[in-house]
Order: sequence, then structure tokens, then C-alpha cells
Amino acid sequence: MTTRQQASADAPLVLGLDVGGTSTRALVATLDGRILGTAHGAGGNPVAHGAEVAVREIGGAVRAALAGLDPAGVAAGVIGLAGGSLAPPEVLALWPATGLTVTPRLVGDAELAHAAGTAAADGTLLLSGTGAIAAEIRDHALRRTADGHGWLLGDRGSGFWLGREAVAAALTAVDRALPFDGPSLRLPGLAGAIADALVGPDGLGREPRSALIAAAHAEAPARLARLAPVVLDHAAAGDPVALALVDRAADHLIATLALVREPDSPLPLVLAGGLLASATPLVAHLRPRLAARWPDAVVSTARNGAGAAAWLAARDLGRGTEELHRLLTA
Amino acid sequence: MTTRQQASADAPLVLGLDVGGTSTRALVATLDGRILGTAHGAGGNPVAHGAEVAVREIGGAVRAALAGLDPAGVAAGVIGLAGGSLAPPEVLALWPATGLTVTPRLVGDAELAHAAGTAAADGTLLLSGTGAIAAEIRDHALRRTADGHGWLLGDRGSGFWLGREAVAAALTAVDRALPFDGPSLRLPGLAGAIADALVGPDGLGREPRSALIAAAHAEAPARLARLAPVVLDHAAAGDPVALALVDRAADHLIATLALVREPDSPLPLVLAGGLLASATPLVAHLRPRLAARWPDAVVSTARNGAGAAAWLAARDLGRGTEELHRLLTA
Repeated sequence: MTTRQQASADAPLVLGLDVGGTSTRALVATLDGRILGTAHGAGGNPVAHGAEVAVREIGGAVRAALAGLDPAGVAAGVIGLAGGSLAPPEVLALWPATGLTVTPRLVGDAELAHAAGTAAADGTLLLSGTGAIAAEIRDHALRRTADGHGWLLGDRGSGFWLGREAVAAALTAVDRALPFDGPSLRLPGLAGAIADALVGPDGLGREPRSALIAAAHAEAPARLARLAPVVLDHAAAGDPVALALVDRAADHLIATLALVREPDSPLPLVLAGGLLASATPLVAHLRPRLAARWPDAVVSTARNGAGAAAWLAARDLGRGTEELHRLLTA
Repeated sequence: MTTRQQASADAPLVLGLDVGGTSTRALVATLDGRILGTAHGAGGNPVAHGAEVAVREIGGAVRAALAGLDPAGVAAGVIGLAGGSLAPPEVLALWPATGLTVTPRLVGDAELAHAAGTAAADGTLLLSGTGAIAAEIRDHALRRTADGHGWLLGDRGSGFWLGREAVAAALTAVDRALPFDGPSLRLPGLAGAIADALVGPDGLGREPRSALIAAAHAEAPARLARLAPVVLDHAAAGDPVALALVDRAADHLIATLALVREPDSPLPLVLAGGLLASATPLVAHLRPRLAARWPDAVVSTARNGAGAAAWLAARDLGRGTEELHRLLTA
């Protein structure tokens, strides 16, 4: 956990919280955009980690971000939480315990990700991280979503999907290589890199199919998302199998987006999630498809989620300017 | 369990066993093709059900098929078992306990399915049931396989795959229908039939996405294969979503088959498994693709697996004629 802090201020403060499965981030700012404190901790989502961890991580981040400041100076707060409408009583009891005199308003992770990419009230979000979802946002609130159905039934074009398809492609490469003679099967290209990541650097042994399948089943299925960076790296290097997977992922994401975004809509589009929030090969494959279907869309990338939550809090106070959005989400 | 039995015979007998995950079948015949006993029981695969169930079902089927016959008259036996090379000691101990004086030879389920469709020594098998696999058979033995990688990583074009894709399509239909007003969302066509099968006939309620996802997760993933007949029925009735899924399943199966079958190979091709062993819409979608890629292939359908095992036993005695194959697998 880190804190950064500037001079205290008498001006009203806003508190923003971005609580995810892998990190919890807090930000405290003035209404003119001075950031007085930030903090981050481990994942604090109560659905993923339980109420006890949620209280520890969220409470710790709030206290650290407010260190040296008067919690009663916080005039509004927003907390972004996956699931949105659900917060256990333990989390609600946190606010007075941290000295806050206001109750942070809960928003869903899709609303927060949209606000992290644009100050516009209406737009669409396309997120690909461990899972994948598209959302239509109206007046800063969630109107409808597409996909986000989880790894078994959906999340097409997500990190899980890319990892699972990469293992499937490696198994097809094994099918092609069998029967084989030798002490340990080694595969070239992406298949070899996936085998290395799953089984280790010594090859797949004499039972390569069983070795790969057992390794892929040794963890929770969603953990296959950890193989997505291997695919993206190989796509960036021109590996044809990786490029084909990224291309199919882009097709899936476009199909998901089209379920919540009208043809030719000029509204802003925000890209979010680990696979879309930087200049990945997946984004490169998405861009021409986006330009072809929604030529008038302004496409942006989700930035600081805690800053976006703080900006939504400022907006609740009637102070949600574009300038403040720029300062807080930078 | 049923038995059918004709006059006993002094001639040497052959015993065939087809042991699967959902049924166990036994057949006893003379070398000139008279079937003296058959029996069937519940699934007896030791990997799926454990050694105790395997011993009970396999032992019960052997005793019932041999009822009224001298077990010592069995001159050769073959048992087909998924996994092939694995049989627990409890199963091996069964044979003397049933009075057999020979040890049935173990063959894999792919070898047995191939023999259930053709008397030829060399050919390929394409199987789609709960899972999906293709196999190249040389001299009645397995040379190599493709797919069969299980529901998480493969089995593309299988019953599981078709069921999972149908639920995904129903969820996309829900995405399109939301937000909605009313007491319970009802979907038309295949999506509605899948919802009925998973959740019940009263519609999906006010939280249709959660209702479908929870119902699909309530059982082991492979159980989604039970939805495959719903897809096939709707495809037969012309439902466009079902037809598109069946078309994609056919593409996957052709890709799997092409991994083990040379282009233009004239060798026999055997179709097997619940989705291919009768005139399903999936077979109808496969046929033109097969004819285009392998115009010289004689395509047949796997028939009686226990009879095929008995025929392989007769072949071990040098008596595996085409005429006997026809009689035992009918």
C-alpha cells in the first residue's frame, strides 16, 4: 500500500474507490482537481474474496488515502464494485468506522470503467480482461449489457477465452505430431510457448496430450487467462496461430459490442480491461473493425478508475466538469 | 438386464463386451455367426464409475449372456473399454470368477467403434457423442487420434459442445431481450426450448440471465450434452439458430477428422456416437463435406459394439470373415 499526499485543504473533498478482484484503489481529491491522497491494496471484491477481506482492503485503502486529512471533509464518495448493486453489511458499516460522514454511492464496474474513459453521460463500454462484457451506459448508469456470461458459457474474446483457445491450438499441434519417437515432445511457436507456460521448459514428455490436459485442469478454469499475454506477445511477433486467435477474439468482441451499440452510433466508446486498456495486438485487430462499423465513434481507453469514481462523486455535487475528469482520470 | 438365448452348442464360442459410460453390453456367438446370448446392464466403465460398479455390471452382463452355456466353451473374448490400455485388477480377476478359461483381450473404444462399422483392417473413425474424437485405425488397432480433449479444451462438435453453444445462443437472445418489463421472460425458438429444458416451462423469470447461467452450472459441465437432442430436433424443424450450430459442429468434426485422415483417402470411414450413429441433421450436414473432401470413402455407421467385439475375438481365432462381421454387428 502506498500513499501520496499534498497539503490538507479546507475545501470539500471527494473520495473515489475502484474495488476489483485483483486490486483495490482509492483516491481523494479537491473539487478543483488536486489529488491529496491515493492508495492501493490487494483485491477487495466481497464476491470474490469474502466480506472480511473486502473490509480489510477497502478500509485500509480509504484510511491510507485519507491519512493526514479530515475524513469529515469528504463531501461525496463513489465506490465501484463488480456486481454493482450488492454490498455486504460489513462494507456498509465501514464508512462510519473510517470517520466518513457520507456514505459512498455504489456503482457497477461497467459504469466505472465507462467513466474512466469518458466524461460523456451516454456511451458504450467494451471490456476484455479475465472475462469480457459490453455495456450501454445512459446518463452514467448501466442500461444493458451483453456477454459477461462467465468462462463456461461466454466471455468470448476475453483473456480466459484466448488462453483456452491457445491450449486447444497446442493440443491440435500435439495431435499433428503424434505418434512420435523421442524422449520428450517439443512444439514450435505459440504451441511450444503455451506448453512451456503450462508444463515447464523440459518439453511435454512421452505423453504430451495427457501432460497438457492435466496441467490445464490443475487450476480453476478462469486461471487460463494467465496465458493471454503469451498469445498477445506471439501475435505481436507475427506468429500466425496467435494472430488467428487474436483475430477471432476481435470478431467475438465486435459481435458482443454490436448487441448493445446501434449501427453507426456516434456515441463515445470506451475500451477497458487488461487486454484492451493498452496498445495490444487485440486492440490493433479491433480498430479497423470499429472504424468500419462505427466510423463516427470517439474511441478512448479507460484510465484511472479510482479517479473516475472521485469524478462521479464530484458530479453528484454538481461539479463534474470535463476539466476535472481530465485531471482525476489522468 | 435381458438375455436371449438359443440352443447350446459344442462349437467354440466367442464373447464380446462393449463397456461404456452409460451401458454395458455382452454378446456370445458361435464362429458361424449364431448369437447364443446377449445381455446389457448399466454403465460399467471403471474410470467413470469405479472398479466396484465395473465388476458388478461387466460380471453381470457376462454371466447373463453365458446363461445356460459352458463358460469354458468360450475360445476367445474381446472387451472394449474407454481408455483401452487400462483395466483395474478387479476387472482382470473377474474372468476366472465367471468360469471363463480365457482372458478377454482389451481394446479401446475407438478400435471397437471402428470394427462396429467395418470389417476392414484400416480406416478412420469419427465419433460424436458426449465428447468428440477422430481416430486412424491400422490393422484393427489405434494408430493416432485427434481431439477427444475433453469439454474444457476440446470435444468440438460433440454433444457437450452443441449443448454449451445452445445455452450461449440462448444467453445472447436474453442479452437482446433486455431490459424487459413483465413477470417472466419467454424466448422463441431454440432459445426458448433450451430455457424450458434448463429452467422449466414457466419462463426465465425477472432475472433471466442469472436463471439460465445458474441452471447451466448446477450440473457437471459434460451434462450439457443432454441439450444436444433439443438442438438436433430444432435443426430438423428448420430453426435457423439450431441449423447454424449444427453447421459449425460439422465444420469442427471435419477439421478434427482431417487431422487423422489423408486428403482423398479411399479408406473406409465409420461414423459413431449418439450424434452420428443415426440419420441426424448433423450427419446430413456432414455428408456433403465428406463427399467433397473424400469422394472415394465408403462411409458406414457403427452398429452393434458387443457384436463387433465378438467378431474381433473370432478374428483372433483366424475366423474374422466379412460374412461373420455382418451377422454379429447387425
